[in-house]
Amino acid sequence: MTYAIRQIERADPALIARLGACGVATLHEAMGRRGLLSSKMRPIQPDQAIAGSAVTVSAAPADNWMIHVALELAEPGDVLVVAPFSPSDAGYFGDLLAESAQARGVAGLVIDAGVRDLRDLKRMNFPVWSTAISAWGTVKETPGWVNIPVQCAGAIAHPGDVVVADDDGVVIVPRAEASMVLAKAQARIADEGEKRRALREGVPSMDLYNLRPGLAAKGFTYR
Amino acid sequence: MTYAIRQIERADPALIARLGACGVATLHEAMGRRGLLSSKMRPIQPDQAIAGSAVTVSAAPADNWMIHVALELAEPGDVLVVAPFSPSDAGYFGDLLAESAQARGVAGLVIDAGVRDLRDLKRMNFPVWSTAISAWGTVKETPGWVNIPVQCAGAIAHPGDVVVADDDGVVIVPRAEASMVLAKAQARIADEGEKRRALREGVPSMDLYNLRPGLAAKGFTYR
Amino acid sequence: MTYAIRQIERADPALIARLGACGVATLHEAMGRRGLLSSKMRPIQPDQAIAGSAVTVSAAPADNWMIHVALELAEPGDVLVVAPFSPSDAGYFGDLLAESAQARGVAGLVIDAGVRDLRDLKRMNFPVWSTAISAWGTVKETPGWVNIPVQCAGAIAHPGDVVVADDDGVVIVPRAEASMVLAKAQARIADEGEKRRALREGVPSMDLYNLRPGLAAKGFTYR
Amino acid sequence: MTYAIRQIERADPALIARLGACGVATLHEAMGRRGLLSSKMRPIQPDQAIAGSAVTVSAAPADNWMIHVALELAEPGDVLVVAPFSPSDAGYFGDLLAESAQARGVAGLVIDAGVRDLRDLKRMNFPVWSTAISAWGTVKETPGWVNIPVQCAGAIAHPGDVVVADDDGVVIVPRAEASMVLAKAQARIADEGEKRRALREGVPSMDLYNLRPGLAAKGFTYR
Amino acid sequence: MTYAIRQIERADPALIARLGACGVATLHEAMGRRGLLSSKMRPIQPDQAIAGSAVTVSAAPADNWMIHVALELAEPGDVLVVAPFSPSDAGYFGDLLAESAQARGVAGLVIDAGVRDLRDLKRMNFPVWSTAISAWGTVKETPGWVNIPVQCAGAIAHPGDVVVADDDGVVIVPRAEASMVLAKAQARIADEGEKRRALREGVPSMDLYNLRPGLAAKGFTYR
Amino acid sequence: MTYAIRQIERADPALIARLGACGVATLHEAMGRRGLLSSKMRPIQPDQAIAGSAVTVSAAPADNWMIHVALELAEPGDVLVVAPFSPSDAGYFGDLLAESAQARGVAGLVIDAGVRDLRDLKRMNFPVWSTAISAWGTVKETPGWVNIPVQCAGAIAHPGDVVVADDDGVVIVPRAEASMVLAKAQARIADEGEKRRALREGVPSMDLYNLRPGLAAKGFTYR
Repeated sequence: MTYAIRQIERADPALIARLGACGVATLHEAMGRRGLLSSKMRPIQPDQAIAGSAVTVSAAPADNWMIHVALELAEPGDVLVVAPFSPSDAGYFGDLLAESAQARGVAGLVIDAGVRDLRDLKRMNFPVWSTAISAWGTVKETPGWVNIPVQCAGAIAHPGDVVVADDDGVVIVPRAEASMVLAKAQARIADEGEKRRALREGVPSMDLYNLRPGLAAKGFTYR
Repeated sequence: MTYAIRQIERADPALIARLGACGVATLHEAMGRRGLLSSKMRPIQPDQAIAGSAVTVSAAPADNWMIHVALELAEPGDVLVVAPFSPSDAGYFGDLLAESAQARGVAGLVIDAGVRDLRDLKRMNFPVWSTAISAWGTVKETPGWVNIPVQCAGAIAHPGDVVVADDDGVVIVPRAEASMVLAKAQARIADEGEKRRALREGVPSMDLYNLRPGLAAKGFTYR
Repeated sequence: MTYAIRQIERADPALIARLGACGVATLHEAMGRRGLLSSKMRPIQPDQAIAGSAVTVSAAPADNWMIHVALELAEPGDVLVVAPFSPSDAGYFGDLLAESAQARGVAGLVIDAGVRDLRDLKRMNFPVWSTAISAWGTVKETPGWVNIPVQCAGAIAHPGDVVVADDDGVVIVPRAEASMVLAKAQARIADEGEKRRALREGVPSMDLYNLRPGLAAKGFTYR
Repeated sequence: MTYAIRQIERADPALIARLGACGVATLHEAMGRRGLLSSKMRPIQPDQAIAGSAVTVSAAPADNWMIHVALELAEPGDVLVVAPFSPSDAGYFGDLLAESAQARGVAGLVIDAGVRDLRDLKRMNFPVWSTAISAWGTVKETPGWVNIPVQCAGAIAHPGDVVVADDDGVVIVPRAEASMVLAKAQARIADEGEKRRALREGVPSMDLYNLRPGLAAKGFTYR
Repeated sequence: MTYAIRQIERADPALIARLGACGVATLHEAMGRRGLLSSKMRPIQPDQAIAGSAVTVSAAPADNWMIHVALELAEPGDVLVVAPFSPSDAGYFGDLLAESAQARGVAGLVIDAGVRDLRDLKRMNFPVWSTAISAWGTVKETPGWVNIPVQCAGAIAHPGDVVVADDDGVVIVPRAEASMVLAKAQARIADEGEKRRALREGVPSMDLYNLRPGLAAKGFTYR
Repeated sequence: MTYAIRQIERADPALIARLGACGVATLHEAMGRRGLLSSKMRPIQPDQAIAGSAVTVSAAPADNWMIHVALELAEPGDVLVVAPFSPSDAGYFGDLLAESAQARGVAGLVIDAGVRDLRDLKRMNFPVWSTAISAWGTVKETPGWVNIPVQCAGAIAHPGDVVVADDDGVVIVPRAEASMVLAKAQARIADEGEKRRALREGVPSMDLYNLRPGLAAKGFTYR
């Protein structure tokens, strides 16, 4: 019953790039607060930021066989989204797989498990978000699935969804909603620019956001 | 029943500055090992160090309404101490609130929850200690309390207590004890300077601290 | 019943150095995937790497008395491996103990608990791997053991075992197996060099590792 | 952007009942090991077992407004599957909601958060699986979604999927696969009956499962 | 600097009993959702329920010396509220201390740490809420404090506050607010009785709580 | 490199039975507080108590192949001690293996991972201590080791060590120390009997244990 889907649909590269420029926090807001991975998902070094199409991997615990399959199916600019189907913090991905991924133009890795060879990964500037760092090796014994819907660190990713990751974490934008989300995100950014200027000049946020009437209506008082 | 206290008493600024110079570990010792926040409370970047008067916030989960209230009540040099009253790792605080806080001279933020816009916060050099980093947005729906006693990451903070934070974590010094704690901390520092020199020159700590008699008395042996 | 063993056997320094050069992930593989500490054990700063003989400490919770005993028994190049016998995240080790350890030539510390004075430890370049950072002080009230077999963060360490630690974590190589493990690790490294070149040039890992027949044999399909 | 879907498709009640009779562990195997919720999801008392169609709820943290919406849309025999979209262990569901659920014939609740009024829930024999027990109250301030795909404790649930829960945990059987999964599960049960008899009579599992050749082929030895 | 306060003020026993009859969830609501301990605090067996005045203990990690002090200061009906000042899951309390506590009429124990001799504690029907069960013994080496304000599993308890505990957890009612909280709790109970009847008869909670207008105002739709 | 040791030395059955009668907490004390497994290791139902010789299993994550090997090597009265060498909460053991274990006279299972078929295990009265309950299935793909020293939930177990488990947890008594530990445990039990009587009659534990002088010597005061 295990298999890989070879062909997936992807969003337009220009659209993906523009989504990436919005940043995770803004996109998450623009989506109505869906699609964010758990706060356990952290970048392996600061100032990483990527956006790409999800190639999804559902792997056996401590088994990285499916990552090899996924790397071959990935296209330049794709992001691997890997989730073991039973919890594991083993190190599924290290410097050799990173070489292979970079050779194929893969943009980065998001994994609800561990990675290893951390120093090499950093030196190569291969962007990784993971829930663990661990030298535990993995096997190639149990097949899984590539390019099926997966849940990764608490969010659902379909193959071809847009993955955006930065210092704040990782968000999954459904492919069909990408244009709409971009429009909302860009509107937020325009709006925030004005607010930033006002706040920097000392306008109280209580006034800028008009928060006093709501508080009074809920019975909040000052003493 | 929700409210904010407008006026709080603060410690003398010179006293606060001197406490800050002692560092968290020394202050915690000088207080008889009380007032330290949990080791889950971590700085968002290395080498941050602040000291200030606590403006305390008891917030609803994933609701940052009270931070806006607190910012308006804060005075230059104050530190926001924020704790949700039900656990949450949402991102309560980001770049816009940081702009507002810096405009008002707030010294930093200590929050038993998440923050977001991490790259901006670092770029702005706005000091934050948090228990999570998360892009999850918050709402402004449920009022809470500002300037009541709160428990934050395992310690109790009263409004106006002195908050000191550095790479080792965060400690709360009760305002009424601040002078006494400073005196004890400074005595420790003087004492530690001599010990440091002796240890650096190779004096065994077993001798410097006279640890052999106690071990023998407890039946400890060498084989 | 508490005691310290004064004399322990150590591996040859040249052998230890060569093991250190192999790195944690490679050694763990070469050992048949044993001896790795939990992924909760993290370095206090990037790019630390050490190798040395284990001086083991079984300590009471929040009590660092035994570290003083161990420091006196340690020889230049040794690594302290400290585990409380009941869980604790207190800060057992800070700048003064680091001064003493450096004066004695101790190579570093691996502790299944907390450390403090983080800024000083980093400034001194004293290598530490810990499961927590905490200013909580410790006492000297309850003796424990030095140089007995301990379990530290999920692995077993005997005194005199070779401890290797880097960005990926910490591995314990049993002293009696050190030569054999080194041989296997060096063979892996030679083998990986060729693979790295091939992968960098774009050879699919599916071909390089000959992964297709096994997948087919397990009923894995492409769609 | 928040909404509820009124009409969902459900599996045949007789099919649901037969799936329930297979038990969670067997169904999970029959599905190729997908669909199981995390081991953090535990029953509030022993010997509960239910099966029903999922009515899914994506709720704000510490906000149970959507459960009220879901209860009204649920039909007799349905199971509520509730997941907050930001982590929360508040008590979303207590005795009053259980009265309402029982009045409507709801079969039970699966919630990746807390419940309260535990004694009443047990006394009423209303089956609940949760990840926490907590008296923390919730609000009705922020709308969410009812009957959209949700991820609940690490598994994906679509509205109308078959939820089966017992002492071992909770599994989600996709509606479209329900018949196929039932056939496979029933085949497993028949097969296990014979194996159980053989094992009970003392046949070594090494022989019953023919495990020796595979071990030898992997180089496993006896000493 | 360590000490015990001998005399504390307590609430009226009749008032305490009435608070106990309201249950934890109702009291927590009546207090405006403050004072609840973390959901990690669980009863050691079902159907325990107590109410009493807090005798508070701030103890060293894995050190139960202060519990002996507290037992001597406790009066019949009091509840011990014990929190180590550095995290510990050791077993601070077992059958011998339970014998002593029962002999003195102590109503029960709430401890942010472990207990042991579980079978004896259950057989004796001595009510305990704890965050761990562990046979790890404790020492009597480091004094702490008795009857100071403590933070226990995320809530603040002052000596003499009313502690109420049941299957849902533990809540601390400040002594000065006890009468007011009781009045509000009893009003809730009266109100809930009517609601329970209506819900049992099948009135939708959407109508009973008048939830439709608010949802519509927030843009929530049905599809 | 993977293998099983066929022959192990065991302690005398009468000695094992007497150790079992002492209980986990007393044995742990008698051993000088060593050998206790983590408090995460819990019985699957109350009132289980066993003692037996350890047959140890070091298993791959989510792979129960080695349990089959161990069952064949186990003798009546033995206890399986199973630890995956990379963390896993999968369900390694269910009703079929329990049938086999009971047929062979195995006394029980201690596993630093999950078990499943909970209802059957309880019905069969097969004693199990585990760190998880999970229906996740396991594979038979990767060999491990049987009857080597393992670390299980934080303690070290050698094959043939005496395993004692009850409501308080699990303790490992090294075989070579079994007689000495029994003698010390029985002395404790005799001593505790007298203390229990005194405490039950109301003698303050402060007097019974003579705790006042030590407190005074440490500067502890009453106010």
